[in-house]
Amino acid sequence: MPKVVIGVMGPGSEATALDLQNAYTVGQLIATEGWVLLTGGRNAGVMQAASQGAKQAGGLTIGILPSADRAAMSEAVDIPVLTGMGSARNNINVLSSQVVIACGMGAGTASEIALALKAQKKVILLNKNASSQTFFKGLAPELVSVVEQPIAALEIIKAFLSDKDHVNRALE
Amino acid sequence: MPKVVIGVMGPGSEATALDLQNAYTVGQLIATEGWVLLTGGRNAGVMQAASQGAKQAGGLTIGILPSADRAAMSEAVDIPVLTGMGSARNNINVLSSQVVIACGMGAGTASEIALALKAQKKVILLNKNASSQTFFKGLAPELVSVVEQPIAALEIIKAFLSDKDHVNRALE
Amino acid sequence: MPKVVIGVMGPGSEATALDLQNAYTVGQLIATEGWVLLTGGRNAGVMQAASQGAKQAGGLTIGILPSADRAAMSEAVDIPVLTGMGSARNNINVLSSQVVIACGMGAGTASEIALALKAQKKVILLNKNASSQTFFKGLAPELVSVVEQPIAALEIIKAFLSDKDHVNRALE
Amino acid sequence: MPKVVIGVMGPGSEATALDLQNAYTVGQLIATEGWVLLTGGRNAGVMQAASQGAKQAGGLTIGILPSADRAAMSEAVDIPVLTGMGSARNNINVLSSQVVIACGMGAGTASEIALALKAQKKVILLNKNASSQTFFKGLAPELVSVVEQPIAALEIIKAFLSDKDHVNRALE
Repeated sequence: MPKVVIGVMGPGSEATALDLQNAYTVGQLIATEGWVLLTGGRNAGVMQAASQGAKQAGGLTIGILPSADRAAMSEAVDIPVLTGMGSARNNINVLSSQVVIACGMGAGTASEIALALKAQKKVILLNKNASSQTFFKGLAPELVSVVEQPIAALEIIKAFLSDKDHVNRALE
Repeated sequence: MPKVVIGVMGPGSEATALDLQNAYTVGQLIATEGWVLLTGGRNAGVMQAASQGAKQAGGLTIGILPSADRAAMSEAVDIPVLTGMGSARNNINVLSSQVVIACGMGAGTASEIALALKAQKKVILLNKNASSQTFFKGLAPELVSVVEQPIAALEIIKAFLSDKDHVNRALE
Repeated sequence: MPKVVIGVMGPGSEATALDLQNAYTVGQLIATEGWVLLTGGRNAGVMQAASQGAKQAGGLTIGILPSADRAAMSEAVDIPVLTGMGSARNNINVLSSQVVIACGMGAGTASEIALALKAQKKVILLNKNASSQTFFKGLAPELVSVVEQPIAALEIIKAFLSDKDHVNRALE
Repeated sequence: MPKVVIGVMGPGSEATALDLQNAYTVGQLIATEGWVLLTGGRNAGVMQAASQGAKQAGGLTIGILPSADRAAMSEAVDIPVLTGMGSARNNINVLSSQVVIACGMGAGTASEIALALKAQKKVILLNKNASSQTFFKGLAPELVSVVEQPIAALEIIKAFLSDKDHVNRALE
C-alpha cells in the first residue's frame, strides 16, 4: 500500500540559516506524521537539513539525485534514486510528491515550483521572498499557499490529504 | 560546424494574441540571421507561431517534443526530437539553446526560465508580466534581460554572441 | 545511512509463469536480507510479482514508474517514484540498483541489462533464454552471471556486497 | 514539413575499423537521400564517422548528446541537442529516428536496439556479431533486419518508407 510522499525542495549551498532551520523542522514534522520525505538527495542545504530532521524523528527519506553515483548524497537519505540526468530530475521530484514544500528560493527551486504547478500539484512556499510569492500566486492562485512557519505547512497538507477529491486527483 | 541555436519558449494554448505575434516575429528574425530556431515543438501557442515565423523566413526549425510520437507536432517543425519525457524535456530545451527568449508566461515557461538560469544561460523576457520580470531579475540579474519588442531581443543576442567570452562559456 | 537497494527487472504482461514464480521468490529473499527491492513499479508481470514477494516477507519496495501518475502502479509498491519519462526511466532503474537481477526476457528487460552493463553494474540473469545468456556474457563477461534458481542469485549478491572493492565501486 | 530522420547508433571508442567505414558510408548514403542523420553526437566512433560521412555528402546532422555541454561533441554535428542525462538519452535517439541502423555492437548500442524494439521501431543490424543477431531477431523477428553492406541498409529503409502503413505507424 503506497505511502504518503511529501517533497521538500530548496537551495543547496545558497540556503540561508532560516531556510535550513525551517527545512529541518519540516522534515521532523513530516516524519512524525509517518509520511515519507522526498528531497533532491544531495548533502547540501535544504535537501540535507530536511533529511536530517526526518531521520532525527525516525522517518524514512528518499533522495532523487541529479548524479549517476552516490558521491554527493546526503548520509541522511535512506533510499537514493540515482537519475544521472541533472536538473531534468526536478520534474521527477515534483511528480513523485503529493504536496511540494519550497523552503527558500533559487533558480533550481523556482524550476521545481513551476514544474509542480504545471503538473497541477499543491505547492507551499515557506520563505520571505515577496517577489516569488507574488509571481507564483499569480501563476496558479488555487495551487499556491504561502506560510511563515513549518507547522502551518503541515496543517495545510493535513487538510489537503483529508480532502478525498484532492487526494484522488493527486493519486491519478 | 555546429550552428547557432536560439530557443523560443512560451505558453501553448494559453498564449495571448500579443505573445503569438511576438513569437512569429522572433522566429522570422532568428531565421533571417541564419540561426536555428529551437522550440518545444507542439502545434500550439508560442511554439507553433515561432516555428511558422522561422519557416516563412526560410529558416530551419527543431522541436523538442514532450511526447514519444509526432501526433501533436507543429507542421512547421523540420526536425522533431521525440523525448517521451513530458516536462522533463524542458531542461533539454534550455541546455540546447545558446540564448533563451521567453514570449509570454505560464507555469511551463517559468520552469524553462528557471532551468535556464540554473544552467547559467542568458534569458530574454519578452512579455508584459511585471511580477515575472521582478522575480527572475531578482534571481539572476546578470543573466536576465527584459524587452518589449522582438527586434530588441535580437540586438541582445547579437551582442551576446559577438562577445567571445560569453560564447565560449555558452559552448562549454 | 543509505540502505542496500537491489533491482529486479523483467517483462510485464509477457512474463512466463516461471518468471513470475522466480520474481516472487527473489522479492522474498531480498526482503529477508533487509534490502530494499527496486522495480519498474507497474502492476504487471515481474515488477508486480517481485514487489508482492517482498511485501509478503515484510520488506520495503520502491517502484520507478514510467508514468506521471499512479494509475498503473502495483499496490505492493511502498514508494512510487513517478518519472513521466517512459522507457528512459530504465536507466534510473539500473543506476539506482547496486545489483540488477533480470527475471525473464523481453525488449524492455534487454534494455535494462544493456544499460546496467554500460554503467558497469553487476547483472544476474535468471532465465532459460540461451541466446540472451550468450549475447550478454559476450558483451561483459566479468559483469554477467547466469543462474537457474533465485537462491543462487542471492548467494552471488551476498558475495558481491561483502567484497569491499565491489561495494565501493558500486557506491561511487 | 518534418524531414525524414534516420538514426545511426554504434560504439564510441570501441568501434572497429569496419564499423567506422560502414558508419561513414551509411552517413553518406543517408545524406544523399536528403534525409537527416541522427546520432549520439560525440566526437568518437560510429557517431563521429557517420556524421562526417553525412557532411561530406552535404547532409544535415543532428547529435543527441549525453552531456549538458558541447565539450565532447563531434564537429560534424550541425545541431547539437544537449540532454545532460547520460545514457537515458538513448531512448530519445531511438524515438526520434524513423529507422535505426546499428553499426557494430557494445553495451550502449545494445541498449539502443532494445529500446528501439520496445518502441516498435524498425532496426537494421550492420555487424558481424552473430550472437547479437540471434538474440535481437529472437526478441522481435518482424522488426529486425540483418545486413552486411551499407547499401543493403538503405534499400531496406527505402522500402520501409515507401510502405505507407509502416510510415504512418512510425509517424504516430
